[in-house]
Amino acid sequence: MLNFNIKPLPEAIVADLEHKINFKTKPSGSLGKLEQLALKIGRIQNTLNPELTNPTIIVFASDHGIAEEGVSLFPQEVTYQMVLNFLNGGAAINVFSRQHGIDIKVVDAGVKFDFKNQPGLTHAKIGNSTKSFLREPAMTESQCIEAIEKGSNIVDEVYKNGCNIIGFGEMGIANTSPASMLLSLFCNIPIDKCVGRGTGLDDDKLMKKKAILQKALETHTIQPTPLSILSTFGGFEIAMMSGAMLKAAELGMTLIIDGFISTSALLAASKFNARVLDYCIYAHQSNEQGHILMLKYLNADPLVNLDLRLGEGTGAAIVYPIIKSAVAFLNEMASFESANVSEKGVTTAT
Amino acid sequence: MLNFNIKPLPEAIVADLEHKINFKTKPSGSLGKLEQLALKIGRIQNTLNPELTNPTIIVFASDHGIAEEGVSLFPQEVTYQMVLNFLNGGAAINVFSRQHGIDIKVVDAGVKFDFKNQPGLTHAKIGNSTKSFLREPAMTESQCIEAIEKGSNIVDEVYKNGCNIIGFGEMGIANTSPASMLLSLFCNIPIDKCVGRGTGLDDDKLMKKKAILQKALETHTIQPTPLSILSTFGGFEIAMMSGAMLKAAELGMTLIIDGFISTSALLAASKFNARVLDYCIYAHQSNEQGHILMLKYLNADPLVNLDLRLGEGTGAAIVYPIIKSAVAFLNEMASFESANVSEKGVTTAT
Repeated sequence: MLNFNIKPLPEAIVADLEHKINFKTKPSGSLGKLEQLALKIGRIQNTLNPELTNPTIIVFASDHGIAEEGVSLFPQEVTYQMVLNFLNGGAAINVFSRQHGIDIKVVDAGVKFDFKNQPGLTHAKIGNSTKSFLREPAMTESQCIEAIEKGSNIVDEVYKNGCNIIGFGEMGIANTSPASMLLSLFCNIPIDKCVGRGTGLDDDKLMKKKAILQKALETHTIQPTPLSILSTFGGFEIAMMSGAMLKAAELGMTLIIDGFISTSALLAASKFNARVLDYCIYAHQSNEQGHILMLKYLNADPLVNLDLRLGEGTGAAIVYPIIKSAVAFLNEMASFESANVSEKGVTTAT
Repeated sequence: MLNFNIKPLPEAIVADLEHKINFKTKPSGSLGKLEQLALKIGRIQNTLNPELTNPTIIVFASDHGIAEEGVSLFPQEVTYQMVLNFLNGGAAINVFSRQHGIDIKVVDAGVKFDFKNQPGLTHAKIGNSTKSFLREPAMTESQCIEAIEKGSNIVDEVYKNGCNIIGFGEMGIANTSPASMLLSLFCNIPIDKCVGRGTGLDDDKLMKKKAILQKALETHTIQPTPLSILSTFGGFEIAMMSGAMLKAAELGMTLIIDGFISTSALLAASKFNARVLDYCIYAHQSNEQGHILMLKYLNADPLVNLDLRLGEGTGAAIVYPIIKSAVAFLNEMASFESANVSEKGVTTAT
């Protein structure tokens, strides 16, 4: 069940895409990263005329046992309160998604709150919060597999709804802690360098957070397998997001990766199947220092750096118009020939 | 006529704007540059509920005598050909403006071509191309004043049409050369450092361009006044853009500054009245090396770096949704109070 059949991107179409890009009425290469985006999306869709349909951002929410240890500035109930805020349309991700015509799907992956039959919410609860990984594994391996499967199924539904470009967001008080642990273990970086201020810790609280995560690292004997690492130190929303990403790549969708937490899920996903990375667009470089290390490890070139550190998928939503611009220029711009514009170095009679 | 009455931005509203920004349902500061944008636009419009209305990009086109010296890769007729491309909707600026509902106004500031009564074009020709400043001043001071006045009048019309946010684009083969000269003289930087590859010069042609501009610099005895510098080394579209920017600031509009050429016009404008700078949002950092120096000189923090070097106002168009996102979160996001979300450090009963 953890096998995802992700196809390599086609090589055959690259030359034709590059030709189409280069003969638009502009100096060669002058649209910079937009040209790289156009090439990537053309390859993912294996066409010279890609389209972005029913863009969707899934916001996975869950609670974290590690929050009990005092690693976050906000109280744990903010997770469920923000889920209600998402459902009421008042959060940042709602505002930006409305602006750009992006559908949002809010998923309860394991929030410590009984939402009953809250309309609009996708119920996929694995448990009421993970355990504190300072004391025991955050979840069992079978819970982790269940989360991956549910993430995969949710994406399958979104795909059947006509979506071919998908962003991944999250909400979970304290979830920069599991993200830091995954960065440390998957990328073999000392935990000290992987820990940041999250939603705004001061120096003292940052020191405390580092000490807690260092101790947690020493507490467990883990197998060097992605499943063991993800179960011990991950979160329900992170594992579910990993499954969602793997399925989206299997389905040939374009993935928009948001910030620190999203990228930690991608790290895990890439350890199950590295080809998932070929389908990813990196939205932004977050202000959380661990995110910079992740992007470096993945050799990823994010589209923007707006000093965001909000999560929810807000970075993915904010850059969506840039991705759309890349597809738009490829489809709509005139070529030198069609517009009767002289190419460089060619002097024609005026 | 070169006096523009630009008001300082209000101080009184800053505290209220900051309060409104900080009590949105997000960690304080977590929307990064979007929070700074919201504050700036709130101050420009002196309101807690700013609006962006009838966004417009004016594309100023003109030819340059210096093109005859072989400083550009593209032949001069590309200027008028691209103007026709703009009018036909086939250029990059058309694609991105359509995408974002931005009006485009294409202005003939001095293209070496008789457009007759070409519909859709704003006729404001100062002359048929500037002179080659390797040999004589690009334009007379009275032509320069005429260009500034025409730019001002064009913005006045756009403003009367309900626009309160305006971008500035340009088209003019060889216009990175005047932009380099203005950078060198206004910022007192050796010309060698101000010259880049433009639309894609190779090493040999770059050397030649540098030599030509160095020689041009030694040819003229100029007065250290903005009018003298702009007349001797500027371009019709650049001078017109300077006037347009000054007028836009006088009218309290928000200015979106594009790349190297636009910023050279802003440099000139700021020497006439430095307050114009308070009204500016810097769209992007261009791939042209001189642009980085300009931004540094202006202490400007551009929104994105997408390796663009196309001009036309494309950077301004591409970042417009980000600016809109800043206004949208300020107006639409719930506050902690309205959404019943706990603030940091406050633990409430669940």
